[in-house]
Amino acid sequence: MSNQRVVAAGGAAEVGAGCEPAVLREQPVTEAQAAELARVFKALGDPVRVRLLSLIASHDGGEVCVCELSGAFDLTGPTISHHLKVLREAGLVTGERRGTWVYYRAIPEALAALAEALRPATVAGAGA
Amino acid sequence: MSNQRVVAAGGAAEVGAGCEPAVLREQPVTEAQAAELARVFKALGDPVRVRLLSLIASHDGGEVCVCELSGAFDLTGPTISHHLKVLREAGLVTGERRGTWVYYRAIPEALAALAEALRPATVAGAGA
Repeated sequence: MSNQRVVAAGGAAEVGAGCEPAVLREQPVTEAQAAELARVFKALGDPVRVRLLSLIASHDGGEVCVCELSGAFDLTGPTISHHLKVLREAGLVTGERRGTWVYYRAIPEALAALAEALRPATVAGAGA
Repeated sequence: MSNQRVVAAGGAAEVGAGCEPAVLREQPVTEAQAAELARVFKALGDPVRVRLLSLIASHDGGEVCVCELSGAFDLTGPTISHHLKVLREAGLVTGERRGTWVYYRAIPEALAALAEALRPATVAGAGA
């Protein structure tokens, strides 16, 4: 399962695995939860990486060849590769080499863990 | 309205105001949307700031005195103030001085815009 690969890579999905899912507005997050969330948010703290993630995550079939991604940016191949590596190391995407090219997929659990962290609190009175 | 203050400050709420709300998994975000999202994600790319935001956003009544926040960290007052300034400039919190202390509130619209950006696509087939 792809999820196992994510956890093994120390990815964003861990925010919601193993320990309690962090919800910022529900109760103060622990130091461990904050460290893990910050690590993933930091990976998204760059416009190129946000665009790359969106291109990958919104692509028909959920998979994109790196050869398609490069064309969308006025950047060199190595620069694109660097940004993709940061997204991979943050556990937001996976890359699989098939022949000449690497094919990227977003990891829905990782995005869901971040969205969960930012959602309104379910307890009354909070998040007002 | 607090929302006007946010927009005036160039805050995260702008991601979802003015232009189309960005949803990473629905369609590729524009360069402008990516720049604005990255700016706010970058502010969250630090464990202390994630904890500060969570302490503020989860607090009873939705407001916290800076005097309460400082005690939660083994950091100097100026360091806490710096991190709070980054959160303010990103449009994630507001600070209001009343007498000796500054009182902080999270900006729900800013958190909602980020959660929206990370949610699954509503169109069939995407986000799989």
